[in-house]
Amino acid sequence: MSDPVNVVIIGAGFGGLSVARRLSKAPLQITLIDRCNYHLFQPLLYQVATAGLSPADIAWPIRSIVRHQANARVLLGEVNAIDTDHKIVSIDGDSVAYDYLVLATGVRHAYFGNEEWAKYAPGLKQIEDATAIRRRILMAFERAEMETDIEERKRLLTFVIVGGGPTGVELAGALVELARKALVADFRRIDPHQARIIIVEAGNRVLPSFPVRLSQFAERSLEGLGVEVRLGAPITWCDAQGVIVNKERLDAATILWAAGVAASPAGKWLGAQCDSAGRIRAAADLSVPGFPQVYAVGDTVTINDGDGKPLPGIAPVAKQQGRFVARMIETDINKDKSPPAFRYRSAGNLATIGRKSAVIDFGVVRLTGRLAWWIWGFAHIYFLISMRNRVIVTIQWLWSYFTFQRGARLITGEDE
Amino acid sequence: MSDPVNVVIIGAGFGGLSVARRLSKAPLQITLIDRCNYHLFQPLLYQVATAGLSPADIAWPIRSIVRHQANARVLLGEVNAIDTDHKIVSIDGDSVAYDYLVLATGVRHAYFGNEEWAKYAPGLKQIEDATAIRRRILMAFERAEMETDIEERKRLLTFVIVGGGPTGVELAGALVELARKALVADFRRIDPHQARIIIVEAGNRVLPSFPVRLSQFAERSLEGLGVEVRLGAPITWCDAQGVIVNKERLDAATILWAAGVAASPAGKWLGAQCDSAGRIRAAADLSVPGFPQVYAVGDTVTINDGDGKPLPGIAPVAKQQGRFVARMIETDINKDKSPPAFRYRSAGNLATIGRKSAVIDFGVVRLTGRLAWWIWGFAHIYFLISMRNRVIVTIQWLWSYFTFQRGARLITGEDE
Repeated sequence: MSDPVNVVIIGAGFGGLSVARRLSKAPLQITLIDRCNYHLFQPLLYQVATAGLSPADIAWPIRSIVRHQANARVLLGEVNAIDTDHKIVSIDGDSVAYDYLVLATGVRHAYFGNEEWAKYAPGLKQIEDATAIRRRILMAFERAEMETDIEERKRLLTFVIVGGGPTGVELAGALVELARKALVADFRRIDPHQARIIIVEAGNRVLPSFPVRLSQFAERSLEGLGVEVRLGAPITWCDAQGVIVNKERLDAATILWAAGVAASPAGKWLGAQCDSAGRIRAAADLSVPGFPQVYAVGDTVTINDGDGKPLPGIAPVAKQQGRFVARMIETDINKDKSPPAFRYRSAGNLATIGRKSAVIDFGVVRLTGRLAWWIWGFAHIYFLISMRNRVIVTIQWLWSYFTFQRGARLITGEDE
Repeated sequence: MSDPVNVVIIGAGFGGLSVARRLSKAPLQITLIDRCNYHLFQPLLYQVATAGLSPADIAWPIRSIVRHQANARVLLGEVNAIDTDHKIVSIDGDSVAYDYLVLATGVRHAYFGNEEWAKYAPGLKQIEDATAIRRRILMAFERAEMETDIEERKRLLTFVIVGGGPTGVELAGALVELARKALVADFRRIDPHQARIIIVEAGNRVLPSFPVRLSQFAERSLEGLGVEVRLGAPITWCDAQGVIVNKERLDAATILWAAGVAASPAGKWLGAQCDSAGRIRAAADLSVPGFPQVYAVGDTVTINDGDGKPLPGIAPVAKQQGRFVARMIETDINKDKSPPAFRYRSAGNLATIGRKSAVIDFGVVRLTGRLAWWIWGFAHIYFLISMRNRVIVTIQWLWSYFTFQRGARLITGEDE
């Protein structure tokens, strides 16, 4: 009997996990490598940042997910380098040999060459980001309550969100509800109702990946909630006191970054062709040109859909790519005919704005408002991994829906 | 109309909060000061440390708790000093005047003059302690999975708990279940079943605040679960590699401190008479001798019960003391006859050991085993503050009960 074929998957997000699960019955040895011990349901991370959910409500140990998958093992560690000549991945001084390699390492926020802004304007990708942002938001209200200077108090109650994509819109909607509903009776000196929440977006509309009509709905809906939306407003400066947009200084104690992403260094490890955001330019079958038996999925990769537009960096794309790559590997091992090029089948693009307001693009059908919001909620609960999390998130949401309260309003960790 | 009487309460634990709530209808201005923005249900903190519950499941924003109490305000900050001559409390550069002052500042762990052990053997009092301990415990298993050296792997799978009081016993029971039930199918190289969990206790029995028969039951019950219990084993050394007890070196990667507490510096701020653990020696009516209109409650204070034994540092004592002090303040303001000396009415002393095993001392009646465990569970859910938390903790527990899994197995934060 020959040695089993080794499939190494780097990253246990939606893409990587979907490769591993699809290969659960295959006669392979799968190694799943991640820096974290959990798979994170990133679409709801903004709710952790705005005190609605706990981290464990939207995260599961990777080991538990594949515990009954005998052909899979999990390694917790950080990849330092990949040697494609010898087919070896180096992690924390250790090394793992592969026959097939899948890069599913996702993205981090990018500051377009202004990386020093990171400390003033944190982004939202990991659990630690979310709890640090939660701390900043809640501390801003606490500091405002202690502050006697009126101007400084205004600054403390001003929140600037940079970027009008889904994350920015969701954060703004959640933040305005936090201030105007959950916190409003809790303070004695300040009126959280007077908090200013401002979205600054460089482009000419929010939710640019959606049809124009839905962007317009989202903009009106945000304004109805009390969010200030500034379009055509690229940020040109950022410091501890606030930001500058369109030459206007906005004094703000809390700045949140939802503006841009850069792929993890997976492309660099290989020396593969990447786009300006560091995403690997993969072939139509998601293989990495020039590197046999290496594939890339999810946010690590950039490929176009049928119309020549790049696919959005969302969970369904990553999952479908993962399943496709699993099939590629199986057919390659079995010397079967390999599947045709990857084709994304959209089941709809969703974004929520706030209580009873969301937008959904089903292609032909487009929904806005209350119905879209309920569909958004059910879809997100459905896609959570375990029944326990579904039940707990449902309860947290129902409780928030009826009481307008937030269940995880904890200031934890060290002050920066 | 004269200025309202100012009652300043330092600490929003069980004691301080109970003073504030009992005075909710009184014509007073209450200021509740805490370093954290939440009230913590400390009796279940060990479940956060062992990945069973999320921090937000057992914590509530203090502001929310008193939101409808018009005579109360909350300040988030750290007390630096108290000027009893001018009746002023200093917090973070600010100052608050009081007519009545209540010290409810609780305890921290103490290392009996070996404070450098703190970094090797963290204790469990705050949420940050719990998530740091959770990280250590889960990382020990992860490192063992990566380790090839057999001796080092054994060390990584050895957990020493210093102290056999309720916290030590509860931690040991939860840890052995985590290793032998929740983690057992999740690793490929190591067998978590072989994890060694050792309680080292300087005294001659575990749970020394309980009757001897219950201590013996707890010891047998722990041993039945697979915990090694070492009695008459004071710790004499502690470092990154392990501990020394009774001249024997125990190599252990994870050491948890549940051995001793010291009161917060509240006594020192005043210059009041304290016992060796820093607890204020209060009068029978919980006033601090020599400091008019100053009271102390909960773990900040030491007073004896009717039999001359010191009262235990548990939630019911703190709550009853809080209510008593509230009455003292009211009668003093109204120039009524002040109540007689504080008398603790025990409703029972509980400790859980592990699945279906607990001990309860009701005074005359003593319970052990399964019935005690169910009572322990219902009592703890009953005493959680909000209905939301009761529902969520119940679901987490039922899920753990039936699946043997843990719902919050996340490694978060920075590695030390």
